Amino acid sequence: MQQIPVLRVGDALLVSIQIDLEDVTAVELQAALADRIVETGARGVLIDISALEIVDSFIGRMLASIAAVARVLDTETVVVGMRPAVAITMVELGLSLTGVRTALDVERGLALLRAAGAGA
Amino acid sequence: MQQIPVLRVGDALLVSIQIDLEDVTAVELQAALADRIVETGARGVLIDISALEIVDSFIGRMLASIAAVARVLDTETVVVGMRPAVAITMVELGLSLTGVRTALDVERGLALLRAAGAGA
Repeated sequence: MQQIPVLRVGDALLVSIQIDLEDVTAVELQAALADRIVETGARGVLIDISALEIVDSFIGRMLASIAAVARVLDTETVVVGMRPAVAITMVELGLSLTGVRTALDVERGLALLRAAGAGA
Repeated sequence: MQQIPVLRVGDALLVSIQIDLEDVTAVELQAALADRIVETGARGVLIDISALEIVDSFIGRMLASIAAVARVLDTETVVVGMRPAVAITMVELGLSLTGVRTALDVERGLALLRAAGAGA
């Protein structure tokens, strides 16, 4: 049960990360997302990290890498649901989500994608 | 990281079950969902089980129980993303999701909620 579902919500794809990401899962997620973007013509990708209690450099790189792949496929990525403590820890660790947009929750993420007219 | 996020999508709440549900987590999920329903006035609850490879009687009861709580709070529950093999196994085990509606995916679940005008 180490598979992360990619859910279609309107013009966007939603991924809720709840499990510890190991290398294989992260690579699989990236591949599954790329497939679904092409298959659905989704305009945006929302990655919900509200279940994550820590975002380390591995997860940070993975998010940046997913966003980079999505961008090549003409799709915007928004990371949503970051906990306040996670944001503080990330800054303390010197991590920044370069090239990744963020929003407080799924609703605001969807609004951001609509406002950006991503992929339209 | 045994917490299952409850995400707001439009008028509905979306829960994607990816981890093995133990008793505590199931009870917590039910409580968190009830809180969020009251807090947001959500019209519907979508429970995505596309990551589940098996739905046993425990999970079946939990889904029915969540739907019952939601119904008391004037909210419709739709279970989405069931795998074909899961549906077959459930029938073979004699399980049925009594009182729970199902839809193929999140998009159709949202459409079902809109069509039902659930809670409106």
